[in-house]
Amino acid sequence: MLDYQEVLNTIYANAIQEKNKGIVASYIPELKHIDASNFGIHLRLITGKTYNVGQAETHFSIQSISKVLSLAYAFSLVGNKLWQRLDVEPSGNPFNHLALLELEHGIPRNPFINSGAIVIADILISNLKNPKEDFLNYVRDLTNDTSINFNKKVAQSEKNTGFTNYAAANLLKSFNNLENPVEDVLDFYFHQCAIEMNCTQLSNAFFAFANQGKCVLNKTRLTSSQAKRINAIMLTCGFYDEAGEFAFEVGLPGKSGVGGGIVALLPNEFVISVWSPGLNDKGNSKLGMQALEQFTTLTKRSIF
Amino acid sequence: MLDYQEVLNTIYANAIQEKNKGIVASYIPELKHIDASNFGIHLRLITGKTYNVGQAETHFSIQSISKVLSLAYAFSLVGNKLWQRLDVEPSGNPFNHLALLELEHGIPRNPFINSGAIVIADILISNLKNPKEDFLNYVRDLTNDTSINFNKKVAQSEKNTGFTNYAAANLLKSFNNLENPVEDVLDFYFHQCAIEMNCTQLSNAFFAFANQGKCVLNKTRLTSSQAKRINAIMLTCGFYDEAGEFAFEVGLPGKSGVGGGIVALLPNEFVISVWSPGLNDKGNSKLGMQALEQFTTLTKRSIF
Amino acid sequence: MLDYQEVLNTIYANAIQEKNKGIVASYIPELKHIDASNFGIHLRLITGKTYNVGQAETHFSIQSISKVLSLAYAFSLVGNKLWQRLDVEPSGNPFNHLALLELEHGIPRNPFINSGAIVIADILISNLKNPKEDFLNYVRDLTNDTSINFNKKVAQSEKNTGFTNYAAANLLKSFNNLENPVEDVLDFYFHQCAIEMNCTQLSNAFFAFANQGKCVLNKTRLTSSQAKRINAIMLTCGFYDEAGEFAFEVGLPGKSGVGGGIVALLPNEFVISVWSPGLNDKGNSKLGMQALEQFTTLTKRSIF
Amino acid sequence: MLDYQEVLNTIYANAIQEKNKGIVASYIPELKHIDASNFGIHLRLITGKTYNVGQAETHFSIQSISKVLSLAYAFSLVGNKLWQRLDVEPSGNPFNHLALLELEHGIPRNPFINSGAIVIADILISNLKNPKEDFLNYVRDLTNDTSINFNKKVAQSEKNTGFTNYAAANLLKSFNNLENPVEDVLDFYFHQCAIEMNCTQLSNAFFAFANQGKCVLNKTRLTSSQAKRINAIMLTCGFYDEAGEFAFEVGLPGKSGVGGGIVALLPNEFVISVWSPGLNDKGNSKLGMQALEQFTTLTKRSIF
Repeated sequence: MLDYQEVLNTIYANAIQEKNKGIVASYIPELKHIDASNFGIHLRLITGKTYNVGQAETHFSIQSISKVLSLAYAFSLVGNKLWQRLDVEPSGNPFNHLALLELEHGIPRNPFINSGAIVIADILISNLKNPKEDFLNYVRDLTNDTSINFNKKVAQSEKNTGFTNYAAANLLKSFNNLENPVEDVLDFYFHQCAIEMNCTQLSNAFFAFANQGKCVLNKTRLTSSQAKRINAIMLTCGFYDEAGEFAFEVGLPGKSGVGGGIVALLPNEFVISVWSPGLNDKGNSKLGMQALEQFTTLTKRSIF
Repeated sequence: MLDYQEVLNTIYANAIQEKNKGIVASYIPELKHIDASNFGIHLRLITGKTYNVGQAETHFSIQSISKVLSLAYAFSLVGNKLWQRLDVEPSGNPFNHLALLELEHGIPRNPFINSGAIVIADILISNLKNPKEDFLNYVRDLTNDTSINFNKKVAQSEKNTGFTNYAAANLLKSFNNLENPVEDVLDFYFHQCAIEMNCTQLSNAFFAFANQGKCVLNKTRLTSSQAKRINAIMLTCGFYDEAGEFAFEVGLPGKSGVGGGIVALLPNEFVISVWSPGLNDKGNSKLGMQALEQFTTLTKRSIF
Repeated sequence: MLDYQEVLNTIYANAIQEKNKGIVASYIPELKHIDASNFGIHLRLITGKTYNVGQAETHFSIQSISKVLSLAYAFSLVGNKLWQRLDVEPSGNPFNHLALLELEHGIPRNPFINSGAIVIADILISNLKNPKEDFLNYVRDLTNDTSINFNKKVAQSEKNTGFTNYAAANLLKSFNNLENPVEDVLDFYFHQCAIEMNCTQLSNAFFAFANQGKCVLNKTRLTSSQAKRINAIMLTCGFYDEAGEFAFEVGLPGKSGVGGGIVALLPNEFVISVWSPGLNDKGNSKLGMQALEQFTTLTKRSIF
Repeated sequence: MLDYQEVLNTIYANAIQEKNKGIVASYIPELKHIDASNFGIHLRLITGKTYNVGQAETHFSIQSISKVLSLAYAFSLVGNKLWQRLDVEPSGNPFNHLALLELEHGIPRNPFINSGAIVIADILISNLKNPKEDFLNYVRDLTNDTSINFNKKVAQSEKNTGFTNYAAANLLKSFNNLENPVEDVLDFYFHQCAIEMNCTQLSNAFFAFANQGKCVLNKTRLTSSQAKRINAIMLTCGFYDEAGEFAFEVGLPGKSGVGGGIVALLPNEFVISVWSPGLNDKGNSKLGMQALEQFTTLTKRSIF
């Protein structure tokens, strides 16, 4: 029988001796001083059994991983009418996301490119009383952990330098695909991205997607169909311009963030979270991607 | 327990009373006279059990579905060095495939867009003694059916009118990503696309992808890892610009062709083939897409 | 000998009986109530002789025509180092100006597309003590008319709705091609565009470009070489995506604005200003374009 | 008074001591062995007076310069209905000409990008009895020189390697913007580009554009209006992606070819031809561009 702890230990041993650990993201000033030698994994089986290795309890900025949580919240609040304002197709092109938005008349390709996540943020603001608090509480409930919080310095740091996001939000606004003021939407969006978690919390937060929509406390957070659909979007769009590569090499739905976190899952089987802050040239955690490739190779588990 | 025959019957009943059956492809003159009221399904479980409904024995032009078979053959012949000449990322953009090829210096996005399939054809020609015969034999072996053949009239018809493919092949040639003469590569490619099958044969041909690389006769045609990877590419790139939508709505790896065929599969479980010649505006079989959505909804089976 | 007044009268007679006068721009709310039946022309020969017809004394919003004046001011202030931050090539593509900016790493194609004019605005702000006043004074001096002013309501109207310009400015900022805060640059830019003139003032303002850099008072405002170069940019880039068409049909350097104004000139010969608020589908004054075609046809004068 | 011979001598002296002479085009194998130290100029005034310096009598491949001559011929044969099949706007974008053609549904941007020149070639074939001979005779008549000829080796060389042109022609065909077979059109096109001239012949061939449509023998070859319009297209589109730059720096209508030739003209004043085989990174003759900048600077003559 498969010894998961041994698998994690092997991956960890490989990771720590890897010399090229990628480049820590520097475009968010608050993040650029993170130590690239951090490496942690947490695995939670659907049965509740858990395994971890390395810095699985160290907090990091989840960044774009939050897009899955905001999508889940918006999807559960407004249902399929969400898809009137954005699409579910992979974006393909790395160098001209705004171009795509222009060509497609302000309809973002999917909820995981920035413009799509900004539309989701706008939907949440329109549907929540206290958007930031309500969202934080949603994430805490999903994870069953009230200690989860925003890092306000990181949020502020993005606010001061996130000009591309301001460009995207204004472009959406010019196409009438943003109901609320740009400033409000981006304030929410930058906070959402600035949530901090460790690997253990991340596995718990994503448990519902592996568990037919039921969270770690076994409460239904999403319909089974919604959970499946979000998994489908993670598989086709979860890794920027490396989504096809991740499906090809790893074969699990997942999502990465520029903070160096990656979470992936096999429906009805497990959730696995990895953190290693150095990124590859596509903006995904370099050792994190390798770790998940090794994990599916060693365990021979994937959706394919 | 799930009665698959009943499921197929329900889908069939829905399909035949659907008024809008889509538009039969007219850009290949030989195909435009097919009767849009044809509708057939064939389901083959991994156990060998089979079910069918409607015109499951009528032959049709498999067209782009052949791209999976040529990829499988090339992958088994040359292995991973295949990926030096093309990528595995979804293509995204519907209106400018050649643009993408230009921007990315002649490296096709994936093996299922035309330029990618043309590169695969080039690889096969370089590695086979009698390319067309050898490929036909490969497909016959995979399917365990020596009656499978090219429709030479369809191949000729594409040859006379396939100017976009000539454009793509010449563009590849200009980027030194085509070893053989354009005419030879496209002659092979048009023949490959002009293979005819019925739904039953299609399920058999794709059985190996659901069965860890082992074909209907249980002979190993691909490694288990290669089969998984081809499934991953089918999921992310199998439906032109509707790949995300298909993953989202159906949740199975699959491939469609403009002849109106679609084949999809759940690894280790089943292969299902549908044929309905009318296409939707993305170029996929309209009722075929609906049939597969109904199938996964009724059976609650998907990779997610 | 050519009777210019008769030529203007003929053009006027043709214009007022034209039924399709184009569509008044509605994207700037303050402008959309202008009466489309307005039509005026003013012609100033290099000799000082002037001719006019119709509403040549009615004020209108010069909008993008102001981009030539801001370019001239910036060019005279900083000289050729201007061209480190923007290019002089026609932009070609109508539907994806931001795309182009992304692809070309934040270097606008030319000073007359919005992103280019925003860079010019940024340069002026960095080089002027009181940017808005100083610019207004520059324009008044050039025109020898102290009554010229901003329409603050129009400026405010654009500020409230100019999301595409906010998108462009933020994108420039993300590429480090904007020194000043987005809000400051756009405040200046919206004021600059909101200058009001009549046809007579416009001809006077542009006199320097026809007169080797010397303004109506014969004072040197630009070197002769700078004037020529600005004329060259007007010819290749002055009419959005209709620049080639204007060169082809009219054959004069010129600039249009969405307020319905067009100014054109033949170096060493004349400046001509037309105003007709209805636009064609490229965003240029419909009857204004026709008037200038008729003018060059009737007078047989063009740079070619 | 201006001594033109002295001006040419100065330019020549500057050119021969320039160390970086650009790179001789290698993509047409037959051209890559030309000696980069060749440099010649020929100037013909409208009065008939001529001046030259350097290798003004050495023949070179006129390549894209021929596009002006084929446009003139087609324009004189079919008139304005030409413009139903192509546009007159600058193309702007260097890296994706085919992309543009796709986006704009097979209507080339202008007659001087390859796809546009291929459409012109198609029009000539449809309207001429013996296309290649007739075109050659047209050029000989225009130039008053029966010694002008195709270099068949160069034509054949392009035929063997011009895959991008085959791609463009097939793409045009797929949009129904090519009446004749691709092979026939490109055979004509490659011959047209393979015409050889020296600087003197080139000035004579283009004399009609400077002379209101009348050729060196003073016979009318084009209407005055057609000549002006072709000049306008040369100015806005004559130098690939450097057209704006050429208008800005030189200020004359002109056309360059990868053989290293450039011809430019000031209407009613002169035609000037330069040849220097080394190209800059935009594909225009490096020293040729510099020579023309010096010429307009020293003589202070330009259309602006």
